[in-house]
Amino acid sequence: MATKIVDVKVRDIRFPTSKTMDGSDAMNGNSDYSATYVTLVTDDPAGATGHGLTFTIGRGNELCVQAVKSLADLFVIGRSLEQITSDFGSYWHELVAGDCQLRWVGPEKGVVHLATAAIINAIWDLWAKTENKPVWKLLADMSPEQLVNCVDFTYIDDVLMREEAIAMLRRAAPGKARREQEMLEHGYPGYTTAAGWLGYSEEKMRMLARRAVEDGWTHLKQKVGADLEQDVRRARILREELGWERKLMMDANQNWGVDQAVANMRVLAQFDPWWIEEPTSPDDILGHAAIRQRIAPIGVATGEHAHNRVMFKQFFQAGALDFCQLDPARLGGLNEVLAVVLMAAKFGVPVCPHGGGVGLCQYSQNIVLFDYIAVSASLERRVLEYVDHLHEHFEEPIVIRRGRYMPPRAAGYSVTMKEASLEAFAYPDGPKWREH
Amino acid sequence: MATKIVDVKVRDIRFPTSKTMDGSDAMNGNSDYSATYVTLVTDDPAGATGHGLTFTIGRGNELCVQAVKSLADLFVIGRSLEQITSDFGSYWHELVAGDCQLRWVGPEKGVVHLATAAIINAIWDLWAKTENKPVWKLLADMSPEQLVNCVDFTYIDDVLMREEAIAMLRRAAPGKARREQEMLEHGYPGYTTAAGWLGYSEEKMRMLARRAVEDGWTHLKQKVGADLEQDVRRARILREELGWERKLMMDANQNWGVDQAVANMRVLAQFDPWWIEEPTSPDDILGHAAIRQRIAPIGVATGEHAHNRVMFKQFFQAGALDFCQLDPARLGGLNEVLAVVLMAAKFGVPVCPHGGGVGLCQYSQNIVLFDYIAVSASLERRVLEYVDHLHEHFEEPIVIRRGRYMPPRAAGYSVTMKEASLEAFAYPDGPKWREH
Repeated sequence: MATKIVDVKVRDIRFPTSKTMDGSDAMNGNSDYSATYVTLVTDDPAGATGHGLTFTIGRGNELCVQAVKSLADLFVIGRSLEQITSDFGSYWHELVAGDCQLRWVGPEKGVVHLATAAIINAIWDLWAKTENKPVWKLLADMSPEQLVNCVDFTYIDDVLMREEAIAMLRRAAPGKARREQEMLEHGYPGYTTAAGWLGYSEEKMRMLARRAVEDGWTHLKQKVGADLEQDVRRARILREELGWERKLMMDANQNWGVDQAVANMRVLAQFDPWWIEEPTSPDDILGHAAIRQRIAPIGVATGEHAHNRVMFKQFFQAGALDFCQLDPARLGGLNEVLAVVLMAAKFGVPVCPHGGGVGLCQYSQNIVLFDYIAVSASLERRVLEYVDHLHEHFEEPIVIRRGRYMPPRAAGYSVTMKEASLEAFAYPDGPKWREH
Repeated sequence: MATKIVDVKVRDIRFPTSKTMDGSDAMNGNSDYSATYVTLVTDDPAGATGHGLTFTIGRGNELCVQAVKSLADLFVIGRSLEQITSDFGSYWHELVAGDCQLRWVGPEKGVVHLATAAIINAIWDLWAKTENKPVWKLLADMSPEQLVNCVDFTYIDDVLMREEAIAMLRRAAPGKARREQEMLEHGYPGYTTAAGWLGYSEEKMRMLARRAVEDGWTHLKQKVGADLEQDVRRARILREELGWERKLMMDANQNWGVDQAVANMRVLAQFDPWWIEEPTSPDDILGHAAIRQRIAPIGVATGEHAHNRVMFKQFFQAGALDFCQLDPARLGGLNEVLAVVLMAAKFGVPVCPHGGGVGLCQYSQNIVLFDYIAVSASLERRVLEYVDHLHEHFEEPIVIRRGRYMPPRAAGYSVTMKEASLEAFAYPDGPKWREH
């Protein structure tokens, strides 16, 4: 029996994080972590719903909310889950390109693409819930043909064709059950950004770094890019606390030009950074390639602002990346994530998705588990970001053990929020905002 | 005495063009040509106002309207024109990056960047009106230092620095007065897309092509990309009407993959196309470079969807373009256009901006006149698109003589619309929409 989507509810949810400087970096000093939160209402007698969100940092969230409404009217309400998932790649293409008017104000980027992510991920959540599996398990149990059926190869078939993707997935199939068991027992390696925010005092930083080491973290990320002397001072503190065996990563949040990135990283090289993240404009593929060449062996990482699979295709083609940091809510939802994960595997680039924000750790744990079990079959140079903010608002807690993500067990895509939180932080009329 | 901006009015203006299939192509079959129309209200005793717009094709225009309001509250209302223009490059940077929250839902792309264009271009309109010059003349009369002061070199200073831009402009200075005179007498060469829309019948196409030849057009563009056999049939008709001396250009509006573009252009090569425009995704810099290499000597043109100077920087670096078709309302307004025009000059790529839409011919005529008079000093391989739609809604008519654009004479940036049109086509409550 088909499950029909009869309504799409969308809510503007904002957390006043700018008060605590959580999440502060060289580019984003004043963020109210926010979500455009989508609920798919169905005619399922048991009341199945689908939940998805996109992440923004405050103003502009209302634009994504409005874009979800426009897309939902055209492409979601009245469709059945089975109709969508039976040819999911084509449905995804319809959503991003089926209405030329909405496509024009992207295309496949910015507000409309963020809205697409919230909708698409809500459909995956609904699908996984009806299958009674977390999304990582739903994906891991699919055949190569079923997985590839979810991918739109438009604009990427010059580097990856359907048949090649199926062959890659078949080669990775042996050992799937063993790797799934390994993940259930030992979890997936993570890293923490907890100590590194720029708005924290150096004392707070040292204290948080010390605690991170005690908690078993082996990789820690520092925000840089506002002031080089400050970066040096803070890196010294972090190395004092971490020692030299643990990995230190740095993140400039797009604050440098190409030449400036090279010059600054030559100074920061004394602290042996494992990667520099977002050294410059997220659109500058050739700039990242040049930086990578000039600061080797320091790795180059980017992707949380890379807006679609066409950008990632070129980052891979240009040899611009050591680490692919795709964002599960900036790409147009999980279907496009799959396209990027497959291309990354072909080019041999490890996928280390963006965490933090609102719900990004929740999404990303599903992606890396799937990647390890069914695609890359490797943990080499792979770590998933962990940021300890706002998790209390989600129904299923994230479980971290000694710096490793334990696989989520609840059915769905892990971003279902508590109704009480949705009501409290509704913007602008929820009680937490009326207090301000 | 300073001119203070005391209010920003923004209106959602839509024309029901989908009824006539004007503007129909392989990607955009159903467009209601639209504008997010901005009016800057000032405290000037003589009542000076600034007018700017961004172009969309219908749904999604309301998102741009909302984004203009958010940006205006933060960065426009209460500022003085003199304060803005005295350090215009820095002001532009503030508008695109000064609020990290709004930046996040771009950055520098999609809805927020389209909104930026409308605001920035309205400021240029206001400035030119207070100087009593059309924008092309305002620009042509500036010193190299004044021009470069309007440019934000963030993320492009690895290929073009301020000093180099000044030196380039100085080298172009001799002959400025002569070139200006030449333009006033003979105009700037144009081309027409009038006959080429995909939604027109082949009979209508032949008739319009014949009329275009009679009217003196030497370059004509055909829309392709929906169906190769149809493209061949239509190209044959156009060559019958144009002969082989006139130039025929083709425009696929992003409808092909990289390999498909190459295969199809090898078939269409028999019609000697001068360029293929938007053969694939507008984000695919390396894809355009590959296509260009594989279909030479057919030229590759793109840019109307290239969303910022960082994308153009890479199109130039990668040798991906024969013709730079920047869009005056998709780039973040004239300041960013200047950055692209300067980079194009450095790389020796001719600038042939996007025309058509709503107000794009009006804007672009100012850009090419400035480019010829003060930057490139060349007409080689340069033509400005002309599309004969919706011009009746603007206060100053466009003047075409035997296929050449005659320089606008009225002060401003040429996109001030008639108040009657603004009222009639207001969406959704204007009388023309209530009729529907």
